[in-house]
Amino acid sequence: MPHIDVTDRARVYAEVQHFFARQIRLLDAADVEGFAATFTEDGRMHHASRDDDVRGRAAIVESLRANFAQHQGVVPRHWFDKLLIEPSGEDAVTVSYYALVTLTHADGSVTLLPTCLVDDVLVVRDGQLLTQSRSITRDDLLLVPSARRAS
Amino acid sequence: MPHIDVTDRARVYAEVQHFFARQIRLLDAADVEGFAATFTEDGRMHHASRDDDVRGRAAIVESLRANFAQHQGVVPRHWFDKLLIEPSGEDAVTVSYYALVTLTHADGSVTLLPTCLVDDVLVVRDGQLLTQSRSITRDDLLLVPSARRAS
Amino acid sequence: MPHIDVTDRARVYAEVQHFFARQIRLLDAADVEGFAATFTEDGRMHHASRDDDVRGRAAIVESLRANFAQHQGVVPRHWFDKLLIEPSGEDAVTVSYYALVTLTHADGSVTLLPTCLVDDVLVVRDGQLLTQSRSITRDDLLLVPSARRAS
Repeated sequence: MPHIDVTDRARVYAEVQHFFARQIRLLDAADVEGFAATFTEDGRMHHASRDDDVRGRAAIVESLRANFAQHQGVVPRHWFDKLLIEPSGEDAVTVSYYALVTLTHADGSVTLLPTCLVDDVLVVRDGQLLTQSRSITRDDLLLVPSARRAS
Repeated sequence: MPHIDVTDRARVYAEVQHFFARQIRLLDAADVEGFAATFTEDGRMHHASRDDDVRGRAAIVESLRANFAQHQGVVPRHWFDKLLIEPSGEDAVTVSYYALVTLTHADGSVTLLPTCLVDDVLVVRDGQLLTQSRSITRDDLLLVPSARRAS
Repeated sequence: MPHIDVTDRARVYAEVQHFFARQIRLLDAADVEGFAATFTEDGRMHHASRDDDVRGRAAIVESLRANFAQHQGVVPRHWFDKLLIEPSGEDAVTVSYYALVTLTHADGSVTLLPTCLVDDVLVVRDGQLLTQSRSITRDDLLLVPSARRAS
């Protein structure tokens, strides 16, 4: 991707899917450094639903390590759908999407984590997409009385 | 999308995915009027498996309201895959696809509704895609003795 | 697809998705001959995790028949995501992807088979994509002590 015309929807759709395919393989393989390197240096990861807002690759690595400790002995896979991609200036796009995580256990059983809505800002740097920010909202937390849906 | 060349598979693939991303957000947010407005004025929604065949936006709204009453206290998400898109004349496409609905509950658990095969006719009106007809077949109902697989 | 430029990511993404949509409908409908015909004559299907390695369409048909006998009375659906597509020479691509199988039962319940990582080689023959080889790794089998993750 030496250049990306962010208004070319077909091209952008394929590039964003390809970027997520590379990025999420790293996450699901627990390669936290590799995953963090798909963010910009000042990249932000924000869990809207648990007041967890980290900035910078080192902070992302630390946050993920703590999270992955919960998932020993399972293979996680992230599934995305309903990508809504819009250009944002000349070298960035916003991407909103549905996310579902499966956990496959050694006995072959599969459990599902709560579905999420994710909002990314992706930027083009040296011809490559990088995540500048990711905001994750867990659907189950929209259902508790104090959460945003009730407001 | 001022014009769409329905024979350009890359363009059509991205446009249809983008249309579904917008349309289904409205459905999953229970914005039934917004969802109905993504159909043509005479749009048809047909549940092949329960003899439910509605025509026109007002009838779609009414049908969905009854259906949504069943899903209080959960967040639904529709997941699509295996889109098979074919041009149908100059300004329409047929889209056949798999659909799965997750329901996320307040306690974080996720339940799955029966998988479906869906057949849409999408038309281009004023440069925008709209659903002219949607026919939904629930897979579980193919398995009962009187259903179509047995015929 | 009279010709396919395997370096045109948008085109290739849509073509591969379209190919999978056709191919997997045949599999999920238990049309084993139709499914086998989407492989090259010498096509290979390899279940990395159970030492099952078949070559040629007739062998694929036989292998699938044995497998489908396990799934009487359910409707299977294969869901793919995170496609990573790379050109391999002028008329071939490698495609790595996540796969999940849902089984919908007559009572409406849905069960999930263990998630898989699949690696395909797809080739262009007479303007059509065909699978030359498919290697399937079940995630649950990565978790047992003797499996590859431990090596």
